[in-house]
Amino acid sequence: MHEFELINNYFQKLSKKSPSALNLNDDVFFDKKNKLVVSIDTYIEGNHFLNFKKPELVIKKIIRSSISDLICKGVRPKYYFISGSGNKKSFSKSNLSKISKSLNEEQNKYKIFLSGGDTVFSNKLSFTITSIGFANEIVYRNKAKINDDIYVSGNLGDSYLGLLVLKNKIKLNHVLKKYFTNQYYMPNIQLKLIDQIKKIANTSIDISDGLLTDLDKMINIQKYSYKIYLKDIPISSNLKKIIDLKKLSKIDCISNGDDYQVIFTASKKKSGFIKKISSDYGIKLTKIGIIQNFSNKSSIVDNNNQPINLINKGFFHHF
Amino acid sequence: MHEFELINNYFQKLSKKSPSALNLNDDVFFDKKNKLVVSIDTYIEGNHFLNFKKPELVIKKIIRSSISDLICKGVRPKYYFISGSGNKKSFSKSNLSKISKSLNEEQNKYKIFLSGGDTVFSNKLSFTITSIGFANEIVYRNKAKINDDIYVSGNLGDSYLGLLVLKNKIKLNHVLKKYFTNQYYMPNIQLKLIDQIKKIANTSIDISDGLLTDLDKMINIQKYSYKIYLKDIPISSNLKKIIDLKKLSKIDCISNGDDYQVIFTASKKKSGFIKKISSDYGIKLTKIGIIQNFSNKSSIVDNNNQPINLINKGFFHHF
Repeated sequence: MHEFELINNYFQKLSKKSPSALNLNDDVFFDKKNKLVVSIDTYIEGNHFLNFKKPELVIKKIIRSSISDLICKGVRPKYYFISGSGNKKSFSKSNLSKISKSLNEEQNKYKIFLSGGDTVFSNKLSFTITSIGFANEIVYRNKAKINDDIYVSGNLGDSYLGLLVLKNKIKLNHVLKKYFTNQYYMPNIQLKLIDQIKKIANTSIDISDGLLTDLDKMINIQKYSYKIYLKDIPISSNLKKIIDLKKLSKIDCISNGDDYQVIFTASKKKSGFIKKISSDYGIKLTKIGIIQNFSNKSSIVDNNNQPINLINKGFFHHF
Repeated sequence: MHEFELINNYFQKLSKKSPSALNLNDDVFFDKKNKLVVSIDTYIEGNHFLNFKKPELVIKKIIRSSISDLICKGVRPKYYFISGSGNKKSFSKSNLSKISKSLNEEQNKYKIFLSGGDTVFSNKLSFTITSIGFANEIVYRNKAKINDDIYVSGNLGDSYLGLLVLKNKIKLNHVLKKYFTNQYYMPNIQLKLIDQIKKIANTSIDISDGLLTDLDKMINIQKYSYKIYLKDIPISSNLKKIIDLKKLSKIDCISNGDDYQVIFTASKKKSGFIKKISSDYGIKLTKIGIIQNFSNKSSIVDNNNQPINLINKGFFHHF
């Protein structure tokens, strides 16, 4: 059963009674009265991260993934809690030292504080991270307006290339290997966007599952669709090199998830202001598409404005 | 490695930087400025609950265990988040219906609201529950005063008997079987104590690991010890029957954990007031011992005031 269906069928009715539930239909919980914003995610070895050979990097990946949920809503993460379950090898003294050092680095980088957690022993390694912030208002999902421009922060696809490198599915030189695996483990999340996004976005989400999947999610209860221009999707110069060498096509790279960049929609009127913010704060913000009426199917189009057939490409299969 | 040692060695220093950390040395996180109280616990099949044959009961057990952490601190639980990881059998449609129904019952009973969560597939079944409440002040750990009386709410040991029944380690008639397994799955947590405990307690904790283990934890950074009178520990009339039949001794029953009753200490001056609260609100509160100077070793004494040797009894081995 798909997670969305599961939530819908069994749990949504339970949250309806809550004074501040968002009907479980957003990525964060927001209690406006208490200004509280909470995000909880579980990360499992082999599923959300490849393996635990580099504990110090896995920890960075999952911390950033967790706080990314708040950042894309315009909320500054303040506290985090980490619950780990794994065997004695995963939580050896050497690994615990690496985890602790890594958490310390993330705390300093993002000004967040370890506030509690739990460690239990189990054969299967997993972590649940809770991130908490405080905000008067957040950017919600499902608040897109018709004809809104769709923007994305940063570059997409680098993290996917990192995964291919780690799985030995692509051969690259040492420098590129290092670059892409670093992007996989340490996504360049957009802390600087926190205070700006509330000024520009009608609706937003972060990319964890993949550009198109998360776009679908962002407007899942609206009668709208999106049109995305493949050529406009921002990629790094390193990824461009790989694509130019025809090792992979762009469409294969840009919607596999783990990017932790922010997708948002904004009124066309804001386009000048968005350019100014991008340049003032040094945040790469790229217009990649438009919100349209539901009578047009959601699509991603090629250079000739023709929809790319994703089903034949087996596009939605998760790695 | 013991959880306490693990926290001490690797993670305590990370929380020191937090404005409201309690140094990870309490069972809840309390941000006084934002009045926020958070408790996070992970529950693993075979460890924190026996198995998942009765999903509707397991869910009640873990929800009550989670909110018990807030209740013992005098904090009313308001929101809960549940992250489940398990296989398709654990999260079958039938089980999801039972889980949902059970959560609904707990929500109504305790006035709490499902506020989010996460479901991931894994071979090992586990749940992480986050409970959140708001409070101006909480009852902390490690605030006992010398000569404080030690109190416990409710009865102890019934949950352990329930576990023995479920593991077929004791033979009882149908009525008693039902009584004890219900106590194992649906501990009678003390919601009514929330507003009262702040008026009477210097320090408090809930019993999850076992009376003596949790007493140790409650004062783990104080230079104090406890003396507990075995004869004064409150047990149910059903448990008394079993003990009278010499199927088990009292000492074997009362410190195996999962009781989710509250231990607290209070000044002797408060003893009349505590009796009044107990009677006014219908909460069983029993004086079971005293806080003493560290020069006296912590002990539990028999009817002749002699310390019971727990090491020889293999007492601290968890089931």
